Amino acid sequence: MKATANANANIALVKYWGKRNEKLILPHNSSISVTLDGLKTTTTAEFSKNFHKDEFTLNGERKSGEEAKKVSAHLTLIRKMFRRKEFCRVESQNNFPSSAGLASSSSAFAALTLASISALGFNPKPKELSIIARQGSGSASRSIFGGFAEWKKGVQVGGGDSYAVQLYPKEHWPEFRVLACIVSEEEKKVKSRAGMKQTVETSPFYRAWLATVEEDLKKTRRAIKEKNIGLLGKTAELNCLKMQATMITTAPSIVYWEEGTLKAMHAVWQLREEGVNAFFTMDAGPQVKITCLEKDLQKIKQRMNSEGFGKIIESRPGDGTVLSTKHLF
Amino acid sequence: MKATANANANIALVKYWGKRNEKLILPHNSSISVTLDGLKTTTTAEFSKNFHKDEFTLNGERKSGEEAKKVSAHLTLIRKMFRRKEFCRVESQNNFPSSAGLASSSSAFAALTLASISALGFNPKPKELSIIARQGSGSASRSIFGGFAEWKKGVQVGGGDSYAVQLYPKEHWPEFRVLACIVSEEEKKVKSRAGMKQTVETSPFYRAWLATVEEDLKKTRRAIKEKNIGLLGKTAELNCLKMQATMITTAPSIVYWEEGTLKAMHAVWQLREEGVNAFFTMDAGPQVKITCLEKDLQKIKQRMNSEGFGKIIESRPGDGTVLSTKHLF
Repeated sequence: MKATANANANIALVKYWGKRNEKLILPHNSSISVTLDGLKTTTTAEFSKNFHKDEFTLNGERKSGEEAKKVSAHLTLIRKMFRRKEFCRVESQNNFPSSAGLASSSSAFAALTLASISALGFNPKPKELSIIARQGSGSASRSIFGGFAEWKKGVQVGGGDSYAVQLYPKEHWPEFRVLACIVSEEEKKVKSRAGMKQTVETSPFYRAWLATVEEDLKKTRRAIKEKNIGLLGKTAELNCLKMQATMITTAPSIVYWEEGTLKAMHAVWQLREEGVNAFFTMDAGPQVKITCLEKDLQKIKQRMNSEGFGKIIESRPGDGTVLSTKHLF
Repeated sequence: MKATANANANIALVKYWGKRNEKLILPHNSSISVTLDGLKTTTTAEFSKNFHKDEFTLNGERKSGEEAKKVSAHLTLIRKMFRRKEFCRVESQNNFPSSAGLASSSSAFAALTLASISALGFNPKPKELSIIARQGSGSASRSIFGGFAEWKKGVQVGGGDSYAVQLYPKEHWPEFRVLACIVSEEEKKVKSRAGMKQTVETSPFYRAWLATVEEDLKKTRRAIKEKNIGLLGKTAELNCLKMQATMITTAPSIVYWEEGTLKAMHAVWQLREEGVNAFFTMDAGPQVKITCLEKDLQKIKQRMNSEGFGKIIESRPGDGTVLSTKHLF
């Protein structure tokens, strides 16, 4: 009863920010993302009657705090759904910094969901996986799918219609690239979960943010369909700035930006002034992710390097969550 | 027909951002400010039948572009009101960097209004001065008064009820201090006037911003009355962040923040975590202005120095616009 799954983290082009149901993780708005082949989590889940509790190891380090609790809560949900009682040992590896706003929870809970359910001997459909992964971390619902995915917010109280669907597989737009410029590898002070709750409760702009999302979704779907990097990049950049603006105006204010964040933003705008199709997006952290096409990659990387960004993770549209090995004893 | 006037720049604690009438400079919301004795403009205006055009000199440099046009337009307004025809030579000195978001237009148009009207031999009341100064630059309406002033937005189409009043003179709160940390002395790329127009027209958050201002005005009036630095500082900081959020979300986005701005903001938050009553506010530029009390001044200055801010302009509540000399020929 052991299985290993890989998942790519995804970056939202139209952001998920704020829940209508905290427990079930149901969002106020739909969101669109692309998985990133450069950001990968590999997770092995092993259930056994001999285990007396759940255990979670991340990058070789045994975890005991908040992270271990969230993993165990997700395993409990899965045990309940599949009527099983065994405890589980989970071993995860990220090939990128955790908790620094690189969407590690999206790949983490996508991989955990598939690995653990597979280890229990089940083979659920992507929709089910997405619904279950969502309850571990909202953005994980989208990492089930490779390429471009949309998480439909749904309207049902129980969340049965709140899951991601694939818009286009990774083969649809192979020239699409994302460069994640690492501004800081420190753990962020305010976790996304707490941040979005604070925003929904206190930002005077939250309702206005929601009112603009449908239009951004429409533009983004069209931009991906037509492979229009300008429309995609501009829409995603403004969508991100709107989300950031709702954070900045919470009480107390949440500013994930650091000096390097501003530097990278200005560098991207400078590139655009020079005619290069480079656009940024940021999440609940200081890192700046640049969306662009393959043909502009070298120029953008060189510029960001010369601006002092030594660590840049390059991605193209990645895979969905994939089962790699499965051992049933 | 020559007169010289001094005026202090003011910094808004509750911001003015967006006009309901571009020509008359009528704002969408009321605002509250404090004049800063460290930021001073001295302006001499001389009218003569021998002059064949208006001339404007700033810090010893003859101006010909946009600035000269704005000065001349203001002189034309004043000539029309006072039924005079002579051209005017204007000489101004700022003791601080111009056009870098230090509210130089507030002191500029306040001093120009008083100097030029005085040079013409008139002696208008503060309310009239405020209404006229407002039409040169909105924030100048507040610089007519020393200490703390409120610019009442007014409701009349002609703007006759849109002027500033003094809330408290500078003697009311002598311990109050503002430290302007100079992040950059470069001229800003987007002028306030263009920036606020763009915001009103395109930010999806502009209406939500307006809806929160009345509450901020109330809190700020009370904080000044009670000399409550915590309430004043927090209200002003959040008000500023809300205004910044409306800018950030305009299309195209306006981000006046630079790397140093973020650094200063984080330093101020760090000071607060350590129990120091330091609060920031920013305007349409990268500079960070810290509101505090005299007793915390040294600690804050030392910290900001050690964070790399070498140029800090210290102010206490300053004077209103004052006539210094008047020569009638």
